[in-house]
Amino acid sequence: MPYVAPVAEQRFVLDHIAGLAEIAAHERFAAASPDTVEAILVGAGEFAEGVFAPLNLPGDRAGATLTAEGVVTPPGFREAWRAYVEGGWNSLAAPAEHGGMGLPFVLAAAVQEDLGSANLAFSLCPMLSTGAVEALARHGTAEQQAAWLPKLVTGEWTGTMNLTEPQAGSDVGALRSTATRLPDGRYAISGTKIFITWGEHDLVDNIVHLVLARTPGAAAGTRGISLFIVPRFNADGAANDAYCSALEHKLGIHASPTCVMHYGEQGACIGEIIGGEGEGMRAMFTMMNVARLNVGLQGVSIAERATQAAVDYAQSRIQSARAGAASREPVAIIGHPDVRRMLLRMKALTQGARALVYFAASQVDRAAAGEAGAKARADLLTPLAKAWGTDIGCEVASLGLQVHGGAGYIEETGAAQYFRDARIAPIYEGTNGIQAADLVTRKLGLEEGATLDRLLAEIAAAAAVAPPLAMLAEAVAKDARWLHGASIDDRLAASYPFLTMLAVATAGMLMARQLSAADGEGPFLAMKRAACRFFLDRIVPEAPGLSAQVSAGAAPLYAVDDEAFRA
Amino acid sequence: MPYVAPVAEQRFVLDHIAGLAEIAAHERFAAASPDTVEAILVGAGEFAEGVFAPLNLPGDRAGATLTAEGVVTPPGFREAWRAYVEGGWNSLAAPAEHGGMGLPFVLAAAVQEDLGSANLAFSLCPMLSTGAVEALARHGTAEQQAAWLPKLVTGEWTGTMNLTEPQAGSDVGALRSTATRLPDGRYAISGTKIFITWGEHDLVDNIVHLVLARTPGAAAGTRGISLFIVPRFNADGAANDAYCSALEHKLGIHASPTCVMHYGEQGACIGEIIGGEGEGMRAMFTMMNVARLNVGLQGVSIAERATQAAVDYAQSRIQSARAGAASREPVAIIGHPDVRRMLLRMKALTQGARALVYFAASQVDRAAAGEAGAKARADLLTPLAKAWGTDIGCEVASLGLQVHGGAGYIEETGAAQYFRDARIAPIYEGTNGIQAADLVTRKLGLEEGATLDRLLAEIAAAAAVAPPLAMLAEAVAKDARWLHGASIDDRLAASYPFLTMLAVATAGMLMARQLSAADGEGPFLAMKRAACRFFLDRIVPEAPGLSAQVSAGAAPLYAVDDEAFRA
Repeated sequence: MPYVAPVAEQRFVLDHIAGLAEIAAHERFAAASPDTVEAILVGAGEFAEGVFAPLNLPGDRAGATLTAEGVVTPPGFREAWRAYVEGGWNSLAAPAEHGGMGLPFVLAAAVQEDLGSANLAFSLCPMLSTGAVEALARHGTAEQQAAWLPKLVTGEWTGTMNLTEPQAGSDVGALRSTATRLPDGRYAISGTKIFITWGEHDLVDNIVHLVLARTPGAAAGTRGISLFIVPRFNADGAANDAYCSALEHKLGIHASPTCVMHYGEQGACIGEIIGGEGEGMRAMFTMMNVARLNVGLQGVSIAERATQAAVDYAQSRIQSARAGAASREPVAIIGHPDVRRMLLRMKALTQGARALVYFAASQVDRAAAGEAGAKARADLLTPLAKAWGTDIGCEVASLGLQVHGGAGYIEETGAAQYFRDARIAPIYEGTNGIQAADLVTRKLGLEEGATLDRLLAEIAAAAAVAPPLAMLAEAVAKDARWLHGASIDDRLAASYPFLTMLAVATAGMLMARQLSAADGEGPFLAMKRAACRFFLDRIVPEAPGLSAQVSAGAAPLYAVDDEAFRA
Repeated sequence: MPYVAPVAEQRFVLDHIAGLAEIAAHERFAAASPDTVEAILVGAGEFAEGVFAPLNLPGDRAGATLTAEGVVTPPGFREAWRAYVEGGWNSLAAPAEHGGMGLPFVLAAAVQEDLGSANLAFSLCPMLSTGAVEALARHGTAEQQAAWLPKLVTGEWTGTMNLTEPQAGSDVGALRSTATRLPDGRYAISGTKIFITWGEHDLVDNIVHLVLARTPGAAAGTRGISLFIVPRFNADGAANDAYCSALEHKLGIHASPTCVMHYGEQGACIGEIIGGEGEGMRAMFTMMNVARLNVGLQGVSIAERATQAAVDYAQSRIQSARAGAASREPVAIIGHPDVRRMLLRMKALTQGARALVYFAASQVDRAAAGEAGAKARADLLTPLAKAWGTDIGCEVASLGLQVHGGAGYIEETGAAQYFRDARIAPIYEGTNGIQAADLVTRKLGLEEGATLDRLLAEIAAAAAVAPPLAMLAEAVAKDARWLHGASIDDRLAASYPFLTMLAVATAGMLMARQLSAADGEGPFLAMKRAACRFFLDRIVPEAPGLSAQVSAGAAPLYAVDDEAFRA
């Protein structure tokens, strides 16, 4: 079942949720004319459908492999990457002064969604690369930008993010890689990094690694960390002392090489610092916030693909007559109530997650254009978009597999691949638990709570015209007040259920807005209304029940000691 | 992390939920003396830990393979099977008159749980075989029983169930395999079956296939189906015309050969009928009901294993200091509130599902011993145990993967295998959607609703002493009344959310009972109380929100036409 880019849906959400016209009214995003937006959505859709999507299943089977010559990508990936670069798809949101098109991030997100739906493993490569562009564009010197950005922007080169080490996962501050200043101002880098996505591959001539390391005598924890440009090949063309020793054997995203990277084993790995010593986490966080939204988007991507496949299967698989129907002829299973419930749930969750992620992404553009409050709103929404978006990706992929019945458990149908691929997204770029902790420790207090209060007020206003939201809006507001006065342990114990409630409430508000805007004829609008109603009438009422977990507090979790967990 | 059989927990649930002492008081189950029960729980646990568990990860890697000599199981499986047979583990619940030990099914279920935790793929072989024993013991002639049962009971031979054909999955009545009566009273079998678990393998000398087929001129649908014994080797030792042409490439349970089976391609496949023509579904259903409980049990098995692995990881993985703690030293992640929340949720769900499945299994024994009402209760509980038990298996395996963070996505830790293996259980032995349909179409009306009413009354009584249950008990009772008067479409549209509510309410009742019984010192009872409280205080309150989906009805699902699902 071929992937079809959901252009009408993306356009609808960009118009009615992201407010793309408002964003394009800013001088900075003048390039985003209606014609350009339409051309990009259609063109990117066709590219994803025609070039990336056909490589998804074979890419999963072949996987990326490590050979004596380095990491080899699956057949067809090199040609597809060349087409991607030549099509200019890598440069959409990059700043015009560095050769990019300067388009809004939220529009680039729609394109990234297509790539992820078509081929999640492949789409990680440009996603990480875009993060490196972002970091260099914001924090690099003019010289560094001139040296590295042009080819990173086009996609002739790619970039990576190097944070994790065996003992430093969620706790980035525990990393031990070192960077020692050389007489010429550059640094000698030494250390091992793990879980480096697209850390080595054969798509391009050069890979620009952004590596976090610690300078001698630096402070403990994250304050002592600096960020370095460590190219595979230096500006003079000499190979750097950096290599990939192994690829991980993963549950999914097999075509994406997840590398163990060694820097400076021969004592000859050279890097340049970005910003000053000790400023690495700040620079990395500018990459990570955008990356977190992009990972939330992966949940949308995989949910969209899984839904399309399930609809396709349910329309073609004939099995059993409708219960109670006059005809005893078997029907396509989409006709059976519980299958239809699963499909509508998939549609509703996917649309809700897309609305939330685009809404968050649009705040990044509004902030860049100087709109007041947008930066804080983006910061508040980012953990919701990342965690809930990726949870939804897993749930929808699992429902999709279930719709397929026995065929879903067989790898040939693809449903199982979506299920496997989706499962990484709640883990990387900060586990969803880390997102929840971020929400309750840093984000609720933004602008002394005003950012949250404004969002809650908008949810309450939406509830006034969409009654099913009312109970949830009240529960979330009450729990937010409770969290405000709670101990750090209680806040953390409550963090995940509270995040889910707030995310569902926000998505519910956005679905209510879409329902209001979805007046008119035709199958797209009919399905939009049905999905919005399903979300409001059936999914929103599931969330208030999480409130019991918020107020239950941390103490019961510690009523048993660690050892009793083995009993 | 080695598997450790949860003997104390199993013993507790057998005592306080299954009422094993009451069951053993029946003459029929006199063999189940306290000493015997203890010896079996301990011995089976040791066997599962020592023999089946070490083969789990290597079995997943090697998988079952089809060679020119037939299906080859992974290294070590043949020896492990021999040890299993020699230990007498296959014959626990088989009738004494056929060489079995005549022990209660619920005790055999505890053993089956261990085998499934240790090695889910392997455990399918005895599980299916036990079903064949059940069908032959109940419906076979004395001659058939003498010919096939002795070696099936010991495990020297194994049995299979052959229902599914490419066009006949959930709709068994659509099957087309044929059986034509021969002059000697036997039948010539012809047809292709798919998804046949352990349909061919190298563990034993003979495999006894139980095959559903249609006799010439038989009625359409399920009424025209008969059941046949089709041994790989006939009683005279001659090979039957039956072979496996392919194995499926599955998401998980790789060590379990899932076969495409061809019967009678040479026109020489001979079978014997079990019961009369047209009585096949009745015989198959006696196998299937027990098989459905055993599949619900697989959810418990995989949840137990995933929980143990996650606890192990969380106690050994050191990462980050406790937020707000005086010490800045990193701690084992089990110390972090959200990780602890996940682990306790895993414990609570696993214990809740175990209680529900054992409770249902104990009704089978009570029914066999002639207790009034037990048969109907077993029938009502079976779809709950199968569907909710397997949903819990998937949720807990997913949480377990999440606790592992990035390491969980790497196949080496095993967490990913549990996640993959768990996902088959909501599909086979009747998808969970089929279970939900069975609940609302056949089971709610058992004894004119009296079976359900008695269960609801017990839940309400438990709610009186466990207040968090009260809201759910009311919601379930209200929804049950609504369903009673609802159209078939409305009932089916409501079926899945209603099944989940009723299952959580029933498990909640059983957790409340366990909480009352869990007085005393020591880590086991402390964890039992904590898990019961977590279930009642945090999981039960999630369920009433599903009520909105019950009463929302089917009409909104059909407000959009089939084609709009592609829009």
